[in-house]
Amino acid sequence: MALARIARSNLRRSGVSVGSNVHEKNMFNERTYTTKGSLPSHVDGPFSYISRNKEQNNMNFSKRGITGTAFHQLPNTQRVVEESESEFEDDPTRYAGLEATKPGEKPRVVVLGTGWAACRFLKGLDTRIYDVVCISPRNHMVFTPLLASTCVGTLEFRSVAEPVGRIQDALAKEPNSYFFLASCTGVDTNKHEVYCEAVTNGGLSKEPYQFKVAYDKLVIAAGAEPLTFGIKGVKEHAFFLREVYHAQEIRKRLLLNLMLSENPGISEEEKKRLLHCVVIGGGPTGVEFSGELSDFITRDVRERYTHVKDYIHVTLIEANEILSSFDVGLRQYATKHLTKSGVCLMRGVVKEVHPQKIVLSDGTEVPYGLLVWSTGVGPSEFVKTLNLPSSPGGRIGVDGWMRVPSVEDVFALGDCAGFLEQTGRPVLPALAQVAERQGKFLVELFNKIGKQNGGKALSADGITLGEQFVYKHMGSMASVGAYKALVDLRQSKDAKGLSLAGFVSWLIWRSAYLTRVLSWRNRFYVAVNWGTTFVFGRDNSRIG
Amino acid sequence: MALARIARSNLRRSGVSVGSNVHEKNMFNERTYTTKGSLPSHVDGPFSYISRNKEQNNMNFSKRGITGTAFHQLPNTQRVVEESESEFEDDPTRYAGLEATKPGEKPRVVVLGTGWAACRFLKGLDTRIYDVVCISPRNHMVFTPLLASTCVGTLEFRSVAEPVGRIQDALAKEPNSYFFLASCTGVDTNKHEVYCEAVTNGGLSKEPYQFKVAYDKLVIAAGAEPLTFGIKGVKEHAFFLREVYHAQEIRKRLLLNLMLSENPGISEEEKKRLLHCVVIGGGPTGVEFSGELSDFITRDVRERYTHVKDYIHVTLIEANEILSSFDVGLRQYATKHLTKSGVCLMRGVVKEVHPQKIVLSDGTEVPYGLLVWSTGVGPSEFVKTLNLPSSPGGRIGVDGWMRVPSVEDVFALGDCAGFLEQTGRPVLPALAQVAERQGKFLVELFNKIGKQNGGKALSADGITLGEQFVYKHMGSMASVGAYKALVDLRQSKDAKGLSLAGFVSWLIWRSAYLTRVLSWRNRFYVAVNWGTTFVFGRDNSRIG
Repeated sequence: MALARIARSNLRRSGVSVGSNVHEKNMFNERTYTTKGSLPSHVDGPFSYISRNKEQNNMNFSKRGITGTAFHQLPNTQRVVEESESEFEDDPTRYAGLEATKPGEKPRVVVLGTGWAACRFLKGLDTRIYDVVCISPRNHMVFTPLLASTCVGTLEFRSVAEPVGRIQDALAKEPNSYFFLASCTGVDTNKHEVYCEAVTNGGLSKEPYQFKVAYDKLVIAAGAEPLTFGIKGVKEHAFFLREVYHAQEIRKRLLLNLMLSENPGISEEEKKRLLHCVVIGGGPTGVEFSGELSDFITRDVRERYTHVKDYIHVTLIEANEILSSFDVGLRQYATKHLTKSGVCLMRGVVKEVHPQKIVLSDGTEVPYGLLVWSTGVGPSEFVKTLNLPSSPGGRIGVDGWMRVPSVEDVFALGDCAGFLEQTGRPVLPALAQVAERQGKFLVELFNKIGKQNGGKALSADGITLGEQFVYKHMGSMASVGAYKALVDLRQSKDAKGLSLAGFVSWLIWRSAYLTRVLSWRNRFYVAVNWGTTFVFGRDNSRIG
Repeated sequence: MALARIARSNLRRSGVSVGSNVHEKNMFNERTYTTKGSLPSHVDGPFSYISRNKEQNNMNFSKRGITGTAFHQLPNTQRVVEESESEFEDDPTRYAGLEATKPGEKPRVVVLGTGWAACRFLKGLDTRIYDVVCISPRNHMVFTPLLASTCVGTLEFRSVAEPVGRIQDALAKEPNSYFFLASCTGVDTNKHEVYCEAVTNGGLSKEPYQFKVAYDKLVIAAGAEPLTFGIKGVKEHAFFLREVYHAQEIRKRLLLNLMLSENPGISEEEKKRLLHCVVIGGGPTGVEFSGELSDFITRDVRERYTHVKDYIHVTLIEANEILSSFDVGLRQYATKHLTKSGVCLMRGVVKEVHPQKIVLSDGTEVPYGLLVWSTGVGPSEFVKTLNLPSSPGGRIGVDGWMRVPSVEDVFALGDCAGFLEQTGRPVLPALAQVAERQGKFLVELFNKIGKQNGGKALSADGITLGEQFVYKHMGSMASVGAYKALVDLRQSKDAKGLSLAGFVSWLIWRSAYLTRVLSWRNRFYVAVNWGTTFVFGRDNSRIG
């Protein structure tokens, strides 16, 4: 209750209203306790939980409860909890973890996430000034713009994944810096602590394994989640294209369907269904994946699966126009090129997704063998349950310095952050280049604050922060397959500028991506992959 | 019953006794029918079933029964089955599939398996003479000797997998040649048919999807299964090292355990357990994996996981001596080198395997975080249930030309085949080089028979087969990590010959493997992988 009181007065003081997307009701529902002594349900404040790795740990959150690890050894703790106002103040042993840094120790920056924003931040952090702890359910950064290419075997999966320990050496080597493979389940902004649950996959003696990490500064860069618009069946039957394992699943399904359709006795109709690849969403990812697929069909399926080559088709379904953020000339070029290479472009809104067909809002049924869902991203469950100010659209609200107002020492970056309405700035699109630029901005700010001894918790008050973050769009790129790409170098949708399409922009696209892949190891690998694919064709072994 | 009668008289005629390893009783137990009309249980003969891909299809065999695909459309078939002596004679529609080849058509060779023997055979087959159908639950060959290297990131997974369509082009391109991703569930040697169940993973409308393939010649090269000696818990808790997905699982577990042990609050004891890698079996695979692991620890863990580097240990447990088939000098060298690089060699016999510890026969408990089981292979369930003559040790019995006596046009190769006792020859070890040599021998025989118009079923009677297969051992190789390897060029255990150990033999080992990886694509990739690992260190991203 003490917590709740402080938190609310904090919010009032800062004059920022808590966004309507913070679902307080959900939080109470999802908080289930395994101990008999239940907590008063109004103890809330800035402390909230959510399980982000339900599937990975094969556990149901409601069955787990919020028991700490050391709890097992303390049968009497539940009484303590009942008697106290806050379970965390009276039971320091409940969560094992990293305690607050002491005077004389380096300040500790905790980073949630391993996406573009988090990794760019990690890469630039001056580890002579700061200790750093990175917490994420995956230990690598995914080079998302190249993910579509891995599905069809143009690139290897590992070429597009960069281990976080290679991005920031300190995580692997410094005695007080760590990477924890875990999901953040809650943040206590007053105590300056985050609560985590390790991704264990059954590997530990005691599970779930929970711990806490105290921070001096917290950087939330936990990303967003694919939008499904509440459409029935999407999560069950469609593939997303955000993680390396998504690409692996898509590849497996594609190769399996090619082989399944060769089985003796499969009807013509079933063959057509199995080899109908449907992509929902005409943004850059959907277009690139369609382009790669049609490339794969033209160059590889025709040669390696001659028995069924005439059955495979790609359909791209989009409610409006494809590549709506691109220049109109480029849009027309993309449409023409995709159609020419055999991709069927279809206008439609998906109503329902069934295991082997989708139903559009006009009643049309589209049978499919592979369904890829790529309709953009929205706030994640984790972000929704954090009791922090929010931006229009439900992201974590930040000011011009990426600070979260109303709480101290908390920053948010990338797809999970958006400018508060009060700043008068628009929420930026969920793009890799936005996230990367924000990571760069913030880490420079951190290094500057750190040099002025403002790294510790609640100690940056007197420091001038300097210029606010300004986003300058560097242009958009999308490959449409067959050595063709679009490059739109305009700074905004309505501005004038350079637009390129064709082989030259494909070259730009490839080389731009090559220089952005972070390590030399992967730069080298991507180049080797491209070369090998060019010479030998794509690999089509189906592993696992 | 007709089938059974013919089969038995066949066996009698050929004077070959059916080996005791053919578990007739098990077959009856495992045959469950979903139709009400059950078959007389003594109809058996050369027709037998087994499900080899239970896990892959997530189905329980006993629930499935043996209903054919077309069965769904034929509600009256069960009556036909009841009235007939054999269900397959009176119901040709029961299994969709490839019918027997007609006069004028090319003879059809059916190959079961995609291991060393099968792929060497496929590679050499003269497809101007034969059509070829390959049936296997995996679509690629695994370059098994390099599998240990993929677990620790020295090599990429795809570098050691070669798609079967690239080994034999006809499978992908010829109109009457196919690769089917399926498990063989039974063989009818009289009708010259194999019965299969497709690996579908839920992709088809009707499941299970079964079909038959008629053959002119059948080559069984379905391999063997890891021996567990009936020890409790092995299958549940240990990893094998035979398939690419095994290596992927081992890698994931290894990296997960490294990260888990860094979590705050993990006890010293738990850290030691998590990072204790135990290898059971001191054959070349076990030794190589231990060597690669200790290399990984020395070169990579010390650098990339400095927080926990002192906790990781490797123990190799063997009941007798490690590398027992090698020259005594080499054995001593291996023992010395492994010990020096930190591998603890332990004599012991495993009694039970628990989730986090193994119990030895003397009562010693060994806690582990990763357990790899590599104690050799034995006959697979599929081979056990085939009603064919058997060799000592329960493999499919063959004569000097790899023919299975008592049945026509059936051949067996590799780990699943062994010389019959009557041949007076020893059963050869389950080695890649044996399988490869047998594949080469048989395919040359097939091409010779085919040229003399003996390719069709029951038509090779008058043809002289020529020399029998003779195995000449080319020597054994094993890497012990850290650029050291053993090469034993003696032709048998007791012969004299060249034995090498150290860096020179490591070079021989690497280059020998490089030239054996089948395609230029993969030769190139393996070389690039080795080069990259040498320069950049191993990759440690944990994907999926």
